[in-house]
Amino acid sequence: MPRFKLILEYDGAPFVGWQRQENGVSVQQVLEEAVLAMTGEPRVVHGAGRTDAGVHAAGQVAHLDLSRDWTPFRLGEGLNAHLVPHAVAVLGVERVADDFDARHSARARDYVYRVVNRRAPLTFGRGRAWRVKPRLDADAMRGAAQVLIGRHDFTTFRDVQCQAKSPVRTLDRLDVSRDGDAIAFEVSALSFLHRQVRSMVGSLIDVGMGRWTAADLEAALKAADRSRCGQVAPAHGLYLVRVEY
Amino acid sequence: MPRFKLILEYDGAPFVGWQRQENGVSVQQVLEEAVLAMTGEPRVVHGAGRTDAGVHAAGQVAHLDLSRDWTPFRLGEGLNAHLVPHAVAVLGVERVADDFDARHSARARDYVYRVVNRRAPLTFGRGRAWRVKPRLDADAMRGAAQVLIGRHDFTTFRDVQCQAKSPVRTLDRLDVSRDGDAIAFEVSALSFLHRQVRSMVGSLIDVGMGRWTAADLEAALKAADRSRCGQVAPAHGLYLVRVEY
Repeated sequence: MPRFKLILEYDGAPFVGWQRQENGVSVQQVLEEAVLAMTGEPRVVHGAGRTDAGVHAAGQVAHLDLSRDWTPFRLGEGLNAHLVPHAVAVLGVERVADDFDARHSARARDYVYRVVNRRAPLTFGRGRAWRVKPRLDADAMRGAAQVLIGRHDFTTFRDVQCQAKSPVRTLDRLDVSRDGDAIAFEVSALSFLHRQVRSMVGSLIDVGMGRWTAADLEAALKAADRSRCGQVAPAHGLYLVRVEY
Repeated sequence: MPRFKLILEYDGAPFVGWQRQENGVSVQQVLEEAVLAMTGEPRVVHGAGRTDAGVHAAGQVAHLDLSRDWTPFRLGEGLNAHLVPHAVAVLGVERVADDFDARHSARARDYVYRVVNRRAPLTFGRGRAWRVKPRLDADAMRGAAQVLIGRHDFTTFRDVQCQAKSPVRTLDRLDVSRDGDAIAFEVSALSFLHRQVRSMVGSLIDVGMGRWTAADLEAALKAADRSRCGQVAPAHGLYLVRVEY
């Protein structure tokens, strides 16, 4: 059966996350319902990463098999028509080889975490970034972030519910940049532990507020102890922006 | 009485516009209610520009007089506390001279109009930009925009309801830039006619689609005839970003 790769964007707010769950509507469910409505085929849509409840995607990737060899353009247009009124959109479709697997073929996942560092509440940006009131030192956060780059046991920065066998991951990138009151954390790795990005960003915010030094962050990492994590940044500032193959 | 300048941000979606009206909730009303709740004083909040229903602001300016000489910080914090849960925020407060007038002292109003040029519907960007499906030629729009720069009779580009005495305005800037599928129109003038920005942007989109040439746009301008206007861009892509003094 022809296999298709989908590039997906969604607003995380209305969903329990990527993965099908009994307690609410997931992005995966909404997509599978659109596939069924359009093609008549009940198919599993396999995602590259299981974004949590409330986490947005600007470039999630998924694959699925269909019995008909749709043109990518028609498949994308049709799915988008059936996805209305959900805040999920197909940005692109490609016909891929049978051994392409959205999850296992991925070489890197790129996330961006968005903070707005100001006292005033957000208006049109509400739900799109984390508003942090105290003035943050972006240089201090950028410096401390270097501690996390590379191969480490990230137990401190993973949720207690995380089901990964190993807590060891290799963090390729954690850049911190400021543009006015907007602060962006750009993070890349082959894969992440559950809530790793939000745990790292929240702990860096503690550095930016002056509560922690880079040495405190390093000690927390080396302790490999979840109770040593700083705050965990809320879901609504996080975006899965790209999956690299 | 001490006079204060407020710098304001708001999501235009829930409002009938800046100005108080009988048919719904305005930004001005919400602000005046917050002022009354905080200070006990019924005051008019005078805005620099009357944004239409649905138009956002990232830097609207207003002034008001209060009998007490609040510190700017306390006034801003207090108003923001009273503005919850409305999508209106005070970004800054300044104590200004008695002859400062948000509307009449302004030297320029700067707007940005945001388009997302793609086929897929918007998700987390819904209501924050105008999604335009056909591929737009940004270079053609940038070139044609030059026709509108300068002092002209803008009758073609003003709403029939516009109450300004003269249709003549001087357009100082109309830049068009593309970043991926995001297109931004940056527009500046001392003042604008009613729906002028949305009328100009919509007509430029007609150029970008290849329906109009720059010469068509120039002919429409010179006709000084509202029926010669192209499409009018929807409110939800427009932001009042700055008022210069």
